[in-house]
Amino acid sequence: MDFLAPYAALFEKQLQNLDYPKKPETLYRPQRYILKNGGKRIRPILSLISCGICGSDPVKAMPAALAVELLHNFTLIHDDIMDQADSRRGEPSVHKKWNEATAILSGDSMFAHSLLQLQNISEDVDHKKISDLFLKAINKVCEGQAMDMEFETRNDVTIDEYHQMIDGKTGALIGAAMQMGGMCGSASQNQLEKLLVIGNSLGLAFQIQDDWLDVFGDPEKIGKRKAGDIHEGKKTLLMLSALERCSKTEREVILGYLDNKPLSEPEVEEVVKIFESNGIKEETKDQFLKHYRHAEKALREFGDSNYKQDLQHLIKFLKNRES
Amino acid sequence: MDFLAPYAALFEKQLQNLDYPKKPETLYRPQRYILKNGGKRIRPILSLISCGICGSDPVKAMPAALAVELLHNFTLIHDDIMDQADSRRGEPSVHKKWNEATAILSGDSMFAHSLLQLQNISEDVDHKKISDLFLKAINKVCEGQAMDMEFETRNDVTIDEYHQMIDGKTGALIGAAMQMGGMCGSASQNQLEKLLVIGNSLGLAFQIQDDWLDVFGDPEKIGKRKAGDIHEGKKTLLMLSALERCSKTEREVILGYLDNKPLSEPEVEEVVKIFESNGIKEETKDQFLKHYRHAEKALREFGDSNYKQDLQHLIKFLKNRES
Repeated sequence: MDFLAPYAALFEKQLQNLDYPKKPETLYRPQRYILKNGGKRIRPILSLISCGICGSDPVKAMPAALAVELLHNFTLIHDDIMDQADSRRGEPSVHKKWNEATAILSGDSMFAHSLLQLQNISEDVDHKKISDLFLKAINKVCEGQAMDMEFETRNDVTIDEYHQMIDGKTGALIGAAMQMGGMCGSASQNQLEKLLVIGNSLGLAFQIQDDWLDVFGDPEKIGKRKAGDIHEGKKTLLMLSALERCSKTEREVILGYLDNKPLSEPEVEEVVKIFESNGIKEETKDQFLKHYRHAEKALREFGDSNYKQDLQHLIKFLKNRES
Repeated sequence: MDFLAPYAALFEKQLQNLDYPKKPETLYRPQRYILKNGGKRIRPILSLISCGICGSDPVKAMPAALAVELLHNFTLIHDDIMDQADSRRGEPSVHKKWNEATAILSGDSMFAHSLLQLQNISEDVDHKKISDLFLKAINKVCEGQAMDMEFETRNDVTIDEYHQMIDGKTGALIGAAMQMGGMCGSASQNQLEKLLVIGNSLGLAFQIQDDWLDVFGDPEKIGKRKAGDIHEGKKTLLMLSALERCSKTEREVILGYLDNKPLSEPEVEEVVKIFESNGIKEETKDQFLKHYRHAEKALREFGDSNYKQDLQHLIKFLKNRES
């Protein structure tokens, strides 16, 4: 993604210059640790580009970009505790490197620091409006995560609920990243609405594609166990579509497996076969491609600029990604 | 505290009317549970009174009062996980009634809902300024909690550090509650500074007094084990003053106990004797009384009003409390 390198470099420099306190050490070292540990910085880059496509210098959106990235990293710290994930980007997760209490608290502090970034937004941006937008998105992220956890013990999840869940867990923050970037760039109401459509669509597309790659992607490229989601008995769109579409017998087979998760290797293979014989592979691919097209369509309504081109490239890149 | 009943009733009604969503259940039931579970509502009442003593109708400070109380309850949910406290106000703590993941997430959502209350503050209050004040206080609360946790494994905590810790853990939010109440009541800069002095002083006084009552209060009135803090080896002001003041031999005795905490009954009694023979009991009482006087002095600079009288009563009540 060379075309994103200038945004990434600009953002990374600001992130490293963040005036993060040194003490208490157990509060701030974990925050610096997870921020140093990288990540693709997709959300803040989307804030910067969104400001650009609305006709302003992307640098104006830097406080929003920082707020969004800090918020995202706060959710990672807490999600890793909730999901009992021992590692993140190849390094120990914060609660493993320190302990749960330290991870909970440093996450809370990062939440506060994320919101404090909004204090640095230019005076001509309505502080109340941008805070409102951000806080409502944060709340949707919490709701999405709660739904995801509830799904674990439910066998009657609907496809509608699944969409609501990923719309919160993934779409809301990406949508907010883009809208906040736009607001910093004096976007019109119409532009803000379009940015929300693009952000939400990208979030949905990205998450469904993630689920799809987990089963049908190349495990070597992805760097994770093949079909890990099926193994864990997760209610992905693939799984929910299969349950809706397959024969009564197949349905009973899958539900039996889910009642006794994690699934064994032969059980995982059986489920993949059911996905394939019922056309779930193609149908789900069509789904995420449709969301990408939706984003592309909304983007076409912006005036031409280098920023627009970069976003078009980014969407194309995401659409064709193999990992 | 009959004189506070009108404020409490006013606040409780608004709290019960809070437009809290019903779903996802695992996100919102824990939040309603901890809010129903009571508490003295000291912080929100201080917001309302502070608005009153600045010459405005206390009801104008309701959004600030709600924000502060939600924030306080969010910290209780997370603190109970960190401190592995199984109960709170006689009921199971949130992570015990549900589980840790649910407690972490419902706390996070309550944090967001707390900040969203600020959206309802009257248009003539500077949203950016009041958010800044609140977020910085929240961050001080996190820093105080981190210091408190660090103290558990340190034997070189200074009295200065102790003051910093309780200033964050207790004083910051009480100070913010009062300042935010004042801001909603169009307080002058001078009034805001006085409110901060009162709030911080009350926070320090209250916390030191809590530590004092733990050792020298009547356990039946307090409803907790006598000298529970000593038993746990906590670095309270009593303990730190004793370590600074007592003889070298006594110091070694105490440090030996702390290295092997929790302390046994005879060890606790030995420590209490050392406190008493070194005048720590009187000295610490003088300390918290001094902070109460500090608050009273700052309060005298406000013009006379019923609200001022109520706050004077409240301070007097707190000063003389036995539990």
